[in-house]
Amino acid sequence: MNTFGKMFRMTTYGKSHGAEIGVIIDGCPSGLEVSLKEIQYEIDRRKPGQSLVTTQRKEKDKVEILNGLIDGKTIGKPIELRILNEDIDLEGYKELEYKPRPGHADFTCYKKYGDWYAFDKTGGRETACRVMAGAIAKKLLKKYAIDILAYSIEIAGIRSRKSYYKDFDLTKLERYKEIIESNPVRCIDEGAARKMENAIIKAKEERDSVGGIVEVIATRIPIGLGEPNYNKLSAALYFGFGSIPAVTGIHIGLFDRIRMHGSEINDRFYLKNGEVKTKTNYCGGILGGISNGMPIVASIGFKPTPSIAKEQHTVDLEKIEETTIKIKGRHDPCIVPRAVPVVEAMMSLTLADHMLLAGYIPKYL
Amino acid sequence: MNTFGKMFRMTTYGKSHGAEIGVIIDGCPSGLEVSLKEIQYEIDRRKPGQSLVTTQRKEKDKVEILNGLIDGKTIGKPIELRILNEDIDLEGYKELEYKPRPGHADFTCYKKYGDWYAFDKTGGRETACRVMAGAIAKKLLKKYAIDILAYSIEIAGIRSRKSYYKDFDLTKLERYKEIIESNPVRCIDEGAARKMENAIIKAKEERDSVGGIVEVIATRIPIGLGEPNYNKLSAALYFGFGSIPAVTGIHIGLFDRIRMHGSEINDRFYLKNGEVKTKTNYCGGILGGISNGMPIVASIGFKPTPSIAKEQHTVDLEKIEETTIKIKGRHDPCIVPRAVPVVEAMMSLTLADHMLLAGYIPKYL
Amino acid sequence: MNTFGKMFRMTTYGKSHGAEIGVIIDGCPSGLEVSLKEIQYEIDRRKPGQSLVTTQRKEKDKVEILNGLIDGKTIGKPIELRILNEDIDLEGYKELEYKPRPGHADFTCYKKYGDWYAFDKTGGRETACRVMAGAIAKKLLKKYAIDILAYSIEIAGIRSRKSYYKDFDLTKLERYKEIIESNPVRCIDEGAARKMENAIIKAKEERDSVGGIVEVIATRIPIGLGEPNYNKLSAALYFGFGSIPAVTGIHIGLFDRIRMHGSEINDRFYLKNGEVKTKTNYCGGILGGISNGMPIVASIGFKPTPSIAKEQHTVDLEKIEETTIKIKGRHDPCIVPRAVPVVEAMMSLTLADHMLLAGYIPKYL
Amino acid sequence: MNTFGKMFRMTTYGKSHGAEIGVIIDGCPSGLEVSLKEIQYEIDRRKPGQSLVTTQRKEKDKVEILNGLIDGKTIGKPIELRILNEDIDLEGYKELEYKPRPGHADFTCYKKYGDWYAFDKTGGRETACRVMAGAIAKKLLKKYAIDILAYSIEIAGIRSRKSYYKDFDLTKLERYKEIIESNPVRCIDEGAARKMENAIIKAKEERDSVGGIVEVIATRIPIGLGEPNYNKLSAALYFGFGSIPAVTGIHIGLFDRIRMHGSEINDRFYLKNGEVKTKTNYCGGILGGISNGMPIVASIGFKPTPSIAKEQHTVDLEKIEETTIKIKGRHDPCIVPRAVPVVEAMMSLTLADHMLLAGYIPKYL
Repeated sequence: MNTFGKMFRMTTYGKSHGAEIGVIIDGCPSGLEVSLKEIQYEIDRRKPGQSLVTTQRKEKDKVEILNGLIDGKTIGKPIELRILNEDIDLEGYKELEYKPRPGHADFTCYKKYGDWYAFDKTGGRETACRVMAGAIAKKLLKKYAIDILAYSIEIAGIRSRKSYYKDFDLTKLERYKEIIESNPVRCIDEGAARKMENAIIKAKEERDSVGGIVEVIATRIPIGLGEPNYNKLSAALYFGFGSIPAVTGIHIGLFDRIRMHGSEINDRFYLKNGEVKTKTNYCGGILGGISNGMPIVASIGFKPTPSIAKEQHTVDLEKIEETTIKIKGRHDPCIVPRAVPVVEAMMSLTLADHMLLAGYIPKYL
Repeated sequence: MNTFGKMFRMTTYGKSHGAEIGVIIDGCPSGLEVSLKEIQYEIDRRKPGQSLVTTQRKEKDKVEILNGLIDGKTIGKPIELRILNEDIDLEGYKELEYKPRPGHADFTCYKKYGDWYAFDKTGGRETACRVMAGAIAKKLLKKYAIDILAYSIEIAGIRSRKSYYKDFDLTKLERYKEIIESNPVRCIDEGAARKMENAIIKAKEERDSVGGIVEVIATRIPIGLGEPNYNKLSAALYFGFGSIPAVTGIHIGLFDRIRMHGSEINDRFYLKNGEVKTKTNYCGGILGGISNGMPIVASIGFKPTPSIAKEQHTVDLEKIEETTIKIKGRHDPCIVPRAVPVVEAMMSLTLADHMLLAGYIPKYL
Repeated sequence: MNTFGKMFRMTTYGKSHGAEIGVIIDGCPSGLEVSLKEIQYEIDRRKPGQSLVTTQRKEKDKVEILNGLIDGKTIGKPIELRILNEDIDLEGYKELEYKPRPGHADFTCYKKYGDWYAFDKTGGRETACRVMAGAIAKKLLKKYAIDILAYSIEIAGIRSRKSYYKDFDLTKLERYKEIIESNPVRCIDEGAARKMENAIIKAKEERDSVGGIVEVIATRIPIGLGEPNYNKLSAALYFGFGSIPAVTGIHIGLFDRIRMHGSEINDRFYLKNGEVKTKTNYCGGILGGISNGMPIVASIGFKPTPSIAKEQHTVDLEKIEETTIKIKGRHDPCIVPRAVPVVEAMMSLTLADHMLLAGYIPKYL
Repeated sequence: MNTFGKMFRMTTYGKSHGAEIGVIIDGCPSGLEVSLKEIQYEIDRRKPGQSLVTTQRKEKDKVEILNGLIDGKTIGKPIELRILNEDIDLEGYKELEYKPRPGHADFTCYKKYGDWYAFDKTGGRETACRVMAGAIAKKLLKKYAIDILAYSIEIAGIRSRKSYYKDFDLTKLERYKEIIESNPVRCIDEGAARKMENAIIKAKEERDSVGGIVEVIATRIPIGLGEPNYNKLSAALYFGFGSIPAVTGIHIGLFDRIRMHGSEINDRFYLKNGEVKTKTNYCGGILGGISNGMPIVASIGFKPTPSIAKEQHTVDLEKIEETTIKIKGRHDPCIVPRAVPVVEAMMSLTLADHMLLAGYIPKYL
């Protein structure tokens, strides 16, 4: 099934090697102003061919709004957004037929669906649909003053010196956004950014790939999103981030709490202008599965791209014999920079869904 | 909502300070032999008061089968399992009223539900219901030769020298199970186990608490559980583990892949007696969200128990003033050893659900 | 699956020939006062052995509240209600083994589940669980001034001269309730009631059974419950009533509209103290799937009870040969009078769910 | 929400007065051959402007396949079908602004969504999306030999002398299909068809409208679709048919059973070539919510079209005063003939979903 969300719901369709990809968004309240420009902006952040560190596959990725808006406003009906595929490069795939790429979904999709090209179901390109839908969710949250921001905090083992739990200033979000968009790895620490970029280029020259970690925050969250037990906001975020391809692990709040003492990591309550706040935010804005009003903080690990140009051992599933392959397509040597807008999208979609579930957003604005 | 699962579904009820807790399991095929002893065995592993490293709260935790079995076999109708609460200790709670414990759900539950005692919704005791339901799921999976095993791999910063990716022998699972049950921290490495135990006792003496990591594996999984995109088996596991209280992060496969190269971590396919296997299993048995037939491997981080005997700062939510509290209840100085059977339960429940979803288990056995 | 509802959700368990039956209600807001007496009252209306026209099977049907209430108020956690079975009469069933009763679920349950006693899954006794859960829903709706009332309008071909579209006075609901409970067929027209009673007794004497129609209304419904397309309030009611055993058809509003003209049945809008009302209510309170503020009206047809004492032809599914059976159990010669509280329950549960879905009821009262 | 189905799922989008309408079908197994011609055939049956008895609004209603098929076969990914709107006639609507049409969703949609044009959410034109998706479902069922057929059995009070329970011959389905398509009211009884046609034309001349009943059957259904309690196949059908606009009631099996005796309507089991069949089929192919292998039979009542050219009283919701309107659009004087393919679609979609749920259809063909 290709649907995500309960009350703010997207269904994605299309495939990377077909004519188009798209998304239907259902449950968005009517009366929300959304411009094509805003959606295109997010897609441009994700699109390939932006710099040396991303795939050289060139796609214009021009968003079209097919349904659900009138005079720039949502009308409470399904919204359809679409991108026509252009640079469809099937050449490299022909010689890989029945030879599953190590680390890819080729093997499992073929075994499950009995169709070699079923791997196309899982293509990273589907994440563009999430980014389009996420742009709508982000705009909706913005109406409630909620800001979403993601950035790389580690690539190829190089750590950023700036992350939520390290030398971070919430009042500088706008400045951070500028920096993030000004370097190809989307890191707030510009020194680390250069090193990360070099590490990616080096991996690429070696026909190899590297991984890393994206951190994401959401600010000005109302208290009370999520429920105890199985509808925890945290569980919903784990689920949403866990549905992004190439994820190896997810942390909510500071993972290193596991090595600290209770007395250190219990976020102390205090009063600020009559409102209850916590001094620290080790819990990442969620207590017992419910938002506590502090920023929500998560980090998501991405493995190195499995598609590498180096020769690799595999099995020919038709001939039932071992063989080798060289992947010729133009792939990202590191998925992390382009994963940043995808992570923002999943955070936005999950929060929009929970804002509706908790009754913070009405059916029409 | 208190329901987990799509086709193998549990609904939990009751609360830690009420008369009883229980679970209704719906969707279990008829004809499965289940004994009270098997369920009681799992509950005994989770119950408090087992050793110095767990809470001294004593609960007999006697499981009762109320519905859904005839002559020791499931009949395809809802199964109800229950535990009557005994050692209900409300004393310590009275003086905490309206003073949220730092790191607890007290604050968020009160804000969301307007009822101070709403925190009882999220109590760790609810996990006993999961363990009861998990025992049924485990038994069902066992019929399909699937084995589930969890164990501590890190506590208070002390790492086990034995974990799935380190000096592990899948043929020794039965021996590992014995070792795990023979030490109070449930660690395969007996040397590390002693150090972990000492670290917990030390934290307890200091009126403090520590955290750690549980690893869990599932063996002999058929190829093809899970779907691409949003019904990924991995996303379902993230969701299931993410619904356990006190979790700080979840890894599927080897998290450290983020610091390695694609050429290192792409699990190489080869043939073994005509079947396709992978040499390594860095992906943790899931490719593109679908099981690939290799063992499923996950690790789950737990924060130090927030309930500590040290004096802590907080806010009185009625008087709207800052104050301090000392928690007097008998709490685990480290939740990790007792989390082991809960992690096994969530793995079992998620896999049973996906075995049914993928059509590997019929409606009656 | 044994769960009904999205936000106000019940899961029923147990079986008619086991030790007990029960229901877990999840999603009920906290702070609702509910007494055992109120639930028992509804169960008493449904219980067997009340008069000559119902089955002579005697069950005390004593409701127990096991979970979810403190000091007579809901606490926002799952509520569990239970009835221990007493007059379990399995004698008659032994000789029916593998000989499906015509008109019963025996045959389909056996074919689907491979277990002769699987028919117990569908027993009418499960409806007692719905009545218990419905009593909570009814109480919740009552807080919002909503009144639910059902009554027989046709039995054995005898029509009541009083039904919503015939000589009905909404201001006399309390009087109607009294009349309904004062005759064994639950009909507002006392003359028709006597004829219906006689017809049922006659059918019983002939070892046969008869059917009829129950009408149900809900008053003071807010405008706006339900959504266009697939979450129509009407579709939810069709689904809810359609899940009651022995239903042959469901009408919402006046069915006979099919034989009238548009100009006759279009309910004309007018103003009453500044509020928009309709003169007539042929649509039964729902326009385009959404409540319009007028009373909701539905009628539900029930077939004659299939369990009759007359000899009937059937097939022995084990010996694969034709045979005959005589059903000896004590069955209702007409299910309609006891179906009245079940219909009220399904109306109450569906409306409570939609009041929550539409945001008319908060999480705590 | 605009989604129908659990495993065979459609999401519809667009609106009658916008640029396009369409549907995404998710969950259809891969490998199903579907031609544009087959889908277009069904749409042509539903499209307006076919004869004197339907609306004169002319729409070419040309179906486009946008996604999900390769070389005429499904690929296991979402299928998208679309129709561009052409004859968009908004003229008549301008003067109706804020004056709700009696019997329409105008009033409830405006009250719920605060937007006058929200009524467009419920437009009958959305049913074209269902017919497109239904064409795929029908084709899938055809692979399993299942045949779906609907036809008018009553219009304007005129009854057909041929319906499932009256002079019907299952071996003549193909002949019946021809007759149904050869008369504008889609009735098997050609004599009645002429009278129905005249009645509709007369109502139209009087600026009025009439209603009627559609019957639908599905043959060669396997035993075992549906579950007891809340996932009954019957409840799913009630829900599906109940989501069609203008429905006033739904019968499954023979509704008149309510006026017969148990001994008459209990379908007698017998053996036919070793297989268990029933002599009669009053239950309409479903016992206890589960299909029994006999044809499934349902009938659905439709009210007269509310849009009539006669002057009608209503309320101006902006000026808060009573007023009158005359609807100028070109509307069906009777919706029944065009509802026939919509009823077939909902039957097909519900059965396809249940065939998948019960495991009768694999993920790839």
